[in-house]
Amino acid sequence: MNYPEPITKLIDSYMLLPGIGRKTATRMAFYTLSMDKDDVKEFSDNLMSAKTDLRSCAICGNITTEETCSICRDTNRDQSTILVVEQPKDILSIDDMNAYNGLYHVLGGVLSPVDGIGPENLNIKLLLNRLRENKAVKELIIATNATPDGEATAQYLAKLVKPAGIKVTRLARGLAVGSDIEYADEMTLKSAVLGRREI
Amino acid sequence: MNYPEPITKLIDSYMLLPGIGRKTATRMAFYTLSMDKDDVKEFSDNLMSAKTDLRSCAICGNITTEETCSICRDTNRDQSTILVVEQPKDILSIDDMNAYNGLYHVLGGVLSPVDGIGPENLNIKLLLNRLRENKAVKELIIATNATPDGEATAQYLAKLVKPAGIKVTRLARGLAVGSDIEYADEMTLKSAVLGRREI
Repeated sequence: MNYPEPITKLIDSYMLLPGIGRKTATRMAFYTLSMDKDDVKEFSDNLMSAKTDLRSCAICGNITTEETCSICRDTNRDQSTILVVEQPKDILSIDDMNAYNGLYHVLGGVLSPVDGIGPENLNIKLLLNRLRENKAVKELIIATNATPDGEATAQYLAKLVKPAGIKVTRLARGLAVGSDIEYADEMTLKSAVLGRREI
Repeated sequence: MNYPEPITKLIDSYMLLPGIGRKTATRMAFYTLSMDKDDVKEFSDNLMSAKTDLRSCAICGNITTEETCSICRDTNRDQSTILVVEQPKDILSIDDMNAYNGLYHVLGGVLSPVDGIGPENLNIKLLLNRLRENKAVKELIIATNATPDGEATAQYLAKLVKPAGIKVTRLARGLAVGSDIEYADEMTLKSAVLGRREI
């Protein structure tokens, strides 16, 4: 026996999501059948809306429903610092901690020779234009992930931007707060020792 | 900073799914933005289709796009046995192991006094009608989950059906106690069917 087509196709759609295999997708599809009809309708509409109503901010690449995003439009923010992230979702993580009030720039990924992603595939040209046109920017904080590709991308950006006299910094690496030295990996420990601070 | 409304609403929709918290829903929503537009459109359509094009089989309660399901229409199947499951998805698990070729009946749940689910909330009346009208049925295999509620439901059904002279069996205790049929491996399911016992 095969499932009827509508449920098979819904299972296939759920399987497109990251980390969702056939078993979980099947469970989700059957759960969908038991959901309130209005909720499913809204779910269906929200999928299309997210795909059609959202665009990239013309300045920083963040997601927005307008021409520019709410952060770029906010003149109360510190205009002298730009923090560079890989993805729009990283902005919320950083902004939520209330320790940074400057601007952002979204690369849309990292350099990855293995995946064939070069500088031309990232939002780098827009960043250089921003720095050229806006002389108020004094510091560029590179907050790519602490992965080899994130590291390489940070080095690449630093080389591009430093000659313009802009200070380029990178998020500190070291022990995660609350973590044990015993369980830290070698590279993390090394960074923690090299980046030690006087107390 | 808050996310734009289209993404917030999509995150909320993903959070309706079983086992999906805010972090995973956020990841899924951002992943959706990077998906092919046609895939998202199809996903959106499939959600509505599963909810509107599927109905319960008028005979057994299985999901179907027609008046009756493909199993009930299949005259090559053994018409003397009905296997009772909690949910439509259980039918595929059992049918896929190729150890059973009879008919099915979907209860739509189990008796659960705690959740206020009594016999009137389950597909039991239709089952009794089937047994009354179709004298060919000689055995009723009760394949509710091996949970206390599944067990109680099996006992309840046995008491109802036995007086009519129909043999009532229960899947063998090959299933791990407290586990769901959906997650059982094929061999366990197979031995459970073959080792079924009269109750």
